Amino acid sequence: MTAQVPPRSGADREPAATARRTSEELLQRVERELRSFLAAERDVWAEVDERAVVAIDALSDLVASGGKRIRPAFCVTGHLAAGGDPQAPGIVAAAAALEMLHVSALVHDDIFDASVQRRGEPTVHAKHSALHTRHAWQGESRRFGESVAVLVGDLALVYSEQLMSRAPSTVVPVWSMLRSELMIGQYLDLAAAAEFSVDPRLSRLIALVKSGHYTIHRPLAVGASVAGRPDLAPAFREYGEAVGEAFQLRDDLLDAFGSSADTGKPAGLDFSQHKMTLLLGWAMQRDEHIRSLITEPGHSPAEVRGRLLDTGVPSDVEKHITDLVERGCKAIADAPVDPVWRSELTDMAVRVAYRNA
Amino acid sequence: MTAQVPPRSGADREPAATARRTSEELLQRVERELRSFLAAERDVWAEVDERAVVAIDALSDLVASGGKRIRPAFCVTGHLAAGGDPQAPGIVAAAAALEMLHVSALVHDDIFDASVQRRGEPTVHAKHSALHTRHAWQGESRRFGESVAVLVGDLALVYSEQLMSRAPSTVVPVWSMLRSELMIGQYLDLAAAAEFSVDPRLSRLIALVKSGHYTIHRPLAVGASVAGRPDLAPAFREYGEAVGEAFQLRDDLLDAFGSSADTGKPAGLDFSQHKMTLLLGWAMQRDEHIRSLITEPGHSPAEVRGRLLDTGVPSDVEKHITDLVERGCKAIADAPVDPVWRSELTDMAVRVAYRNA
Repeated sequence: MTAQVPPRSGADREPAATARRTSEELLQRVERELRSFLAAERDVWAEVDERAVVAIDALSDLVASGGKRIRPAFCVTGHLAAGGDPQAPGIVAAAAALEMLHVSALVHDDIFDASVQRRGEPTVHAKHSALHTRHAWQGESRRFGESVAVLVGDLALVYSEQLMSRAPSTVVPVWSMLRSELMIGQYLDLAAAAEFSVDPRLSRLIALVKSGHYTIHRPLAVGASVAGRPDLAPAFREYGEAVGEAFQLRDDLLDAFGSSADTGKPAGLDFSQHKMTLLLGWAMQRDEHIRSLITEPGHSPAEVRGRLLDTGVPSDVEKHITDLVERGCKAIADAPVDPVWRSELTDMAVRVAYRNA
Repeated sequence: MTAQVPPRSGADREPAATARRTSEELLQRVERELRSFLAAERDVWAEVDERAVVAIDALSDLVASGGKRIRPAFCVTGHLAAGGDPQAPGIVAAAAALEMLHVSALVHDDIFDASVQRRGEPTVHAKHSALHTRHAWQGESRRFGESVAVLVGDLALVYSEQLMSRAPSTVVPVWSMLRSELMIGQYLDLAAAAEFSVDPRLSRLIALVKSGHYTIHRPLAVGASVAGRPDLAPAFREYGEAVGEAFQLRDDLLDAFGSSADTGKPAGLDFSQHKMTLLLGWAMQRDEHIRSLITEPGHSPAEVRGRLLDTGVPSDVEKHITDLVERGCKAIADAPVDPVWRSELTDMAVRVAYRNA
């Protein structure tokens, strides 16, 4: 018998595959961290009172129900692209913190939008309002359900902080900025929807703050700061702002023209919520009549969609998305990042900008 | 001319007066910290967009509108009683963080309770709902006002964290516990009010978590941990739980029998919100008819008050408050704390338990 030489692994031949695998393994650890963190909290509170675990279970359900995990993915990729060690203390907790913060934002967002469904399941406020009605409890069912959802979101916000406290303190400035931007961006979004006035500057600001920074730029920067590489900040900012705007524009298009079977939420929600998206803002600049289709009763989403297509804006938005992806990739092409990670970030830009859900 | 000997200050003669002054000076620095923190955030955001400061201004208004600053006071006292240096880095920020967290809780609480007034001013959600109605904006005024208030409270939660990140990392465990307890205690409070079933064990748990821990025990422990004195934890726990229960019972009595001119909020709010307070729970155990006075329409708060007095529970509660204050003071009497601070903590227990607003 001749000694067996172990076959060269594909990883050795293909650095890209190794990189992708490292990143996927880190993201699996993030999943486990989210679940084990919530399970440990549940154990503590189940000892105190069986009712005390309701809010924690609501978070576990949301974590288990899926989601794209975009922010953990950018955090982990930012870390690895910056040369960070996959075993670095705090990187898994930091990425989990970003997802927990996002869970908080979703729960509160669903109240603002009066959404009854999220990821194919009843939203937290809808579930608890229904429970209140079913048991004929005291008070108003809507207020009860929404109040529970406010507290569930608050708890997730607190937990996100607890997770982030395990990362090195170098993340504090970017983490602080990310969270206050999120809250203020959300406020601007609400105000713009209520006033429903065409103001492309404000719509762009909201897209920049809520998607550019919150979803892409800052998660990359959190990862890079765990790796001790603040020098990558400008490139990650340029990439994040461009790809974030592309992400938001795709969101607008999916909401207007996508299928609710893919997105897991009702189509045309932005219209019914009077969201002043970039897409709508531009379309209304070309065709003022769209405003009344949205604000006056008796018009179907299909009617709005048809009129939007007539303006030509959706296809211009597609072109703009292409330009933004190119701009983002160029920022990374010029950055001091290993070619493997440059190519991974390019792939991610494309995946985010051309997703169908 | 003979050399002037500077007069002995009263402080030298009276350690109690010095102690009190040190504590008051620290609390003044906490006030300045709260205001300067918010002012600095406002400056950053005013550069971005004039509308972006709305949520920050709502917080500044609340901070400026008064409040008892009970949690900063216990934090500062816990620190000084533990022998902490008044100049220790982070003690001012830690006390300010506790107040900012409380501001967050108030803003969200006012949504849960549908309260329209706080400290004699319109609550955040009431103000923004009114603004929405006045401008005839898109969507529902109630949802808009409540959504803005959710975000304003979220922003305060984020800011409280930012302030606490300036304290030594030894505070992290107690700070984490304090915040998750607050959210879960609030949930239990909502659930108990909705179900409105007499369960003295649950009412006590809520009082323990929301008042004992959140208001007194944990703020003292935060202060002691900034001073590096975890050994005081058991005494502060015993004191905090007892005085916290007294604080909550006084709250129940003030709500039922106090004047809204003193408290700055409508009297009898607990009744109209069906809050299952300790006071009500005990009274309903003696007189089941009180339940229908509260849950069925057509009964005035005066009627409930009369029936409550007939049960004899309010005067029993007064006696219980006395016992609790005694228990708290005993815990401190046995603790390794300078007599000056032992006496200050005794005074604080009395002030908290016998306040009129």
